[in-house]
Amino acid sequence: MKRIASRDNPLFKELRKLSSTSQARKHAGLSVLEGLHLCQTYLAVIGAPRHAVFDAQRLDRPDDCHPELLALHDHVPADRQVWLEGKLMQDLETVQAGQGVVFVVDTPAPSLPDRITESCVWLDRIQDPGNVGSILRSCAAAGVRHAFLSEETAFAWSPKVLRSGQGAHFSLTIHEQVDLEALMARLDVPLVATTLDDAQSLYGPALPPKAAWVFGHEGQGVRPALQQAAQVRVHIPQEAAAESLNVAAAAAVCLFEQRRQRLSAQ
Amino acid sequence: MKRIASRDNPLFKELRKLSSTSQARKHAGLSVLEGLHLCQTYLAVIGAPRHAVFDAQRLDRPDDCHPELLALHDHVPADRQVWLEGKLMQDLETVQAGQGVVFVVDTPAPSLPDRITESCVWLDRIQDPGNVGSILRSCAAAGVRHAFLSEETAFAWSPKVLRSGQGAHFSLTIHEQVDLEALMARLDVPLVATTLDDAQSLYGPALPPKAAWVFGHEGQGVRPALQQAAQVRVHIPQEAAAESLNVAAAAAVCLFEQRRQRLSAQ
Repeated sequence: MKRIASRDNPLFKELRKLSSTSQARKHAGLSVLEGLHLCQTYLAVIGAPRHAVFDAQRLDRPDDCHPELLALHDHVPADRQVWLEGKLMQDLETVQAGQGVVFVVDTPAPSLPDRITESCVWLDRIQDPGNVGSILRSCAAAGVRHAFLSEETAFAWSPKVLRSGQGAHFSLTIHEQVDLEALMARLDVPLVATTLDDAQSLYGPALPPKAAWVFGHEGQGVRPALQQAAQVRVHIPQEAAAESLNVAAAAAVCLFEQRRQRLSAQ
Repeated sequence: MKRIASRDNPLFKELRKLSSTSQARKHAGLSVLEGLHLCQTYLAVIGAPRHAVFDAQRLDRPDDCHPELLALHDHVPADRQVWLEGKLMQDLETVQAGQGVVFVVDTPAPSLPDRITESCVWLDRIQDPGNVGSILRSCAAAGVRHAFLSEETAFAWSPKVLRSGQGAHFSLTIHEQVDLEALMARLDVPLVATTLDDAQSLYGPALPPKAAWVFGHEGQGVRPALQQAAQVRVHIPQEAAAESLNVAAAAAVCLFEQRRQRLSAQ
């Protein structure tokens, strides 16, 4: 276990750089997880992080310390622990009321599968980190294990997407910067696009039990090339006067309608 | 039509105060709508605003101006128009790339109905403005017209909730600062709570065709008093390993499952 008291410490400088710039994280192939829930989930699902950074001020006074922080610390191997003294922890935490723990972990970089044979989601230029995180969370909850994110989709391992994903990242395989149009050649399941044009009702003919769902840009929707290539085009029947649904809400409705049909077929 | 060129103009000072502080808006009973889409929707659904504030720099050069901004301006009565010269518009806009239009409108303050006889949503201490806006948008899309927001729920007419609601506000009746426990006495439809304990599957017995859906705090869920009082408790069947869904995603799944059942019964 290392204790660091100085801002000039080389490891602290490295940690600070990682927590403050996405370039540094991408360059190093590392991600930063903040807060109890994300770190607990990582430890339970994946295992020990590269560095588990704790606020020494809290751990040094176990009687005042949040019991979940103490328990988390107990489960991390000592050689991965970094304790920061004084106010150093606050330099690392990006949220105002930090919880005294930050993990530095390897960002997964899975290689593309030769063939896509399972249900998955494709995110086509979804900009808002909250939407991307919410969709990943809905995938994990619905039992969809693979996500393919186009260029211009929010970076999945950014702090905002991680926060909104609430740990879903660790039970999914997430591919980023994917050329979705080229990916179509690898599909062994139907591509299903949500669209308003020339589409069947989500509640019409039965959905394919396995599918690649493509959800699109908040304003422009799914790009035309993918809409046209889709084997199934569905729309969610809505009130005439209403705007279309938020994309993360629409994704949840679609993935859980497929799940409902799957459960009722069992 | 008024043209304003000086920051010392009393109307400009009033507009600036309204756009910059929620206290000023609440005190005056006014809300500020930013951008083409919200203003267009307001004009189409509700009518003329109190003030329609335009960027004179854009309207003065119609050849370079966004055609939707010109069209919007054409539909607003001249006596409601305020044109801001120079850089004054940028003082009002809260987003970086503003679209040159801001409406000041009356914040609706509907009185509570004596009896609740239609489907509605109850939001119990939902903190995140994006979640509140997304749920309001899902309500409008699903044909649910009434929302009751507890104390500690994000203020529905804040800029962030308005942006996330995408105009849904104008087709709903939104009650705020509601004592939800007291509201139960007015219910003529069943209260349905989403919960993990002692709950039927959302895909189990048929849902009530009309219901008051209560969705709760991002971390703590629906408060126990409302859970216990609910006539129906439902859970969304999820993968065992997954975290629960984001509350706005869960609300969309529930409201559209009710809609699916309603449509299939017709």
